[in-house]
Amino acid sequence: MSSENLKFEVQAVSGKARRGQLHTAHGIINTPAFMPVGTAGTVKAMKPEDVAATGAEIILGNTYHLMLRPGAERINRLGGLHRFMNWPGPILTDSGGYQVFSLSQRRTIGEDGVVFQSHIDGARVDLTPERAVEIQHLLGSDITMVLDECTGWPVTEAEARASMELSMRWAARCKAAFRARTGYGLFGIVQGSVFPHLRRDSAAALIDIGFDGYAVGGLAIGEGQETTFSVLDATVPSLPTDHPRYLMGVGKPADILGAVRRGIDMFDCVLPTRSGRNGQVFVRGGTLNLRNARHTDDPGPLDAACTCPPCRHYSRAYLHHLIKAGEMLAGMLLTAHNLHYYQTMMSTIRQAIEENALDAFADTFEAEQAVGPDVSETPPKT
Amino acid sequence: MSSENLKFEVQAVSGKARRGQLHTAHGIINTPAFMPVGTAGTVKAMKPEDVAATGAEIILGNTYHLMLRPGAERINRLGGLHRFMNWPGPILTDSGGYQVFSLSQRRTIGEDGVVFQSHIDGARVDLTPERAVEIQHLLGSDITMVLDECTGWPVTEAEARASMELSMRWAARCKAAFRARTGYGLFGIVQGSVFPHLRRDSAAALIDIGFDGYAVGGLAIGEGQETTFSVLDATVPSLPTDHPRYLMGVGKPADILGAVRRGIDMFDCVLPTRSGRNGQVFVRGGTLNLRNARHTDDPGPLDAACTCPPCRHYSRAYLHHLIKAGEMLAGMLLTAHNLHYYQTMMSTIRQAIEENALDAFADTFEAEQAVGPDVSETPPKT
Repeated sequence: MSSENLKFEVQAVSGKARRGQLHTAHGIINTPAFMPVGTAGTVKAMKPEDVAATGAEIILGNTYHLMLRPGAERINRLGGLHRFMNWPGPILTDSGGYQVFSLSQRRTIGEDGVVFQSHIDGARVDLTPERAVEIQHLLGSDITMVLDECTGWPVTEAEARASMELSMRWAARCKAAFRARTGYGLFGIVQGSVFPHLRRDSAAALIDIGFDGYAVGGLAIGEGQETTFSVLDATVPSLPTDHPRYLMGVGKPADILGAVRRGIDMFDCVLPTRSGRNGQVFVRGGTLNLRNARHTDDPGPLDAACTCPPCRHYSRAYLHHLIKAGEMLAGMLLTAHNLHYYQTMMSTIRQAIEENALDAFADTFEAEQAVGPDVSETPPKT
Repeated sequence: MSSENLKFEVQAVSGKARRGQLHTAHGIINTPAFMPVGTAGTVKAMKPEDVAATGAEIILGNTYHLMLRPGAERINRLGGLHRFMNWPGPILTDSGGYQVFSLSQRRTIGEDGVVFQSHIDGARVDLTPERAVEIQHLLGSDITMVLDECTGWPVTEAEARASMELSMRWAARCKAAFRARTGYGLFGIVQGSVFPHLRRDSAAALIDIGFDGYAVGGLAIGEGQETTFSVLDATVPSLPTDHPRYLMGVGKPADILGAVRRGIDMFDCVLPTRSGRNGQVFVRGGTLNLRNARHTDDPGPLDAACTCPPCRHYSRAYLHHLIKAGEMLAGMLLTAHNLHYYQTMMSTIRQAIEENALDAFADTFEAEQAVGPDVSETPPKT
């Protein structure tokens, strides 16, 4: 149940869902785990101690952003990413591949890697599998991700195969470049788009190389939840049982629950943080848009069942006011609530797995979603 | 040493400076005190518990902003301003007069009050002395300020006299409208621009009406520190010794120190919060602009002598990075540092007065300002 670098223990199962612990150089991660995204060396609008207070045990950093600004070598000189951003817990960094395709202005992909223009200053940047691993080493990441090509969507089978096979050759180069040491691990990424046999071929190729964890990539890019789940159904059985499985970039609470039930252990997504800054909050039964005038006079909390500091101390009316007034505190408090919501959901899911009762939890969750969120019946007054 | 509404005790003096305690319905304020500005029901970029952690015991709310959005009646229905914004300590509210003159789009002043257009939605708003007091009552302010006319600058003596006399008539109407009760007080505001005899006449008029505290208004609007100090020299001796004295809208650290030495007990200013959001920080010896590239590789804290959380946990290099990346955390951390700087200065001033050693503190402060702030000699690396 352990690899040479990262020890992973599965402690309980409920159906295909697993309750585990992943041991890293900076601490233990209880899985299934949700990783808040700290793109540029900060989980936006949150102090790191407040991120930890939501229950988060690991955060994600974006290699693409950090390599461009302030630069991996600079962060390394300043003591590494943990010290730089004052986050003492585990950090997973992506490889930068996804952002090269979504953010950079020009890019050229070749066998060796990708050349692109920085979206910040237009500078030409070379990113190879070896450089991606080196950057993450300089940052001090607990979990390094291999560089992969982000297969587009929609895509033909031939294109998906060629892209996947390139990513597998890059994965082997990443493995060769990675400096193995206790508490630090390297994850491979399964590609193959929506084609089950390509996903299986990709998984087999990665297992042949040997990684400390296995991610499922190339999803949550517009293909829809049903397709995501069918890809997981086709892919997860091909992955080792004794290593963590990570579904990249997912997602909504229902997406996460469905993926846990299909055997996924780790998640990351900007949704709770980005939504919070935009006035959308996750509550029992669904979401609320705090910009809506219906909240103007509502003295109640975001979620009467929530124990987070914003729900204990502030009314919907106040949070609505902060948004209307353009106050930073709005994004701060709504982000804190949303991260607390996500972490509480993960904690509840872990407990349900321990009790072998995940199906019952899922039934309750779906029934609540069908009812929808509590909304005040108080009409706005002028 | 006490009034019917607000008890004020002077515990020590050093020259003209006073060390006191002001007892309000929501707690004791140690003076000389600096009040962070919470314009729209939030000290920008700060959670209220973090404001308190800097040492602040009282904050200021802006009647003008709150009356326009979300509205005084609405805040009252929601339990008052303390509960609305989750600040359990004392709150002073201004009367809205200053902002009417600095922010509203159109305004007409008459004997009865001022009519203006909201800068938010263009609505016509009437603000009379009675309405200003009523709004602050609805908010639940511990300290209510009288409505006054903001005398312009520069100004003739005749204009300054007419403006001051109008403000004195308004002050009498505010006193008549104020509902006296233990722990809540009403402050008058001395006007008269830079004319010593007008200031003395104004002080005499206010004392004749009788207030729980006396503010010096109409300064810090461009007249310069030397003029501010000379107005204080001419005004403070005319004010009662057994009530707190408040210099509105001031100021820089050196302004505050100079005013304390002239007998002022209370201050408010947006400088530490606004500067923090703009990348400027107050440190021993002066200010630093964290936007400057010289901080790019600086591993040191903002101020090696500072004990605030940002100085204990973050490098100048990181804070510079956050600003360049446009991250909200920059404003959050720099505001926290600046408020901590101001509160530490006030605490040090209070201790110096207790030890009858304020002159020595002022000498040290001025010597440090002459040396300037510590700056890194590390050249930026690329």
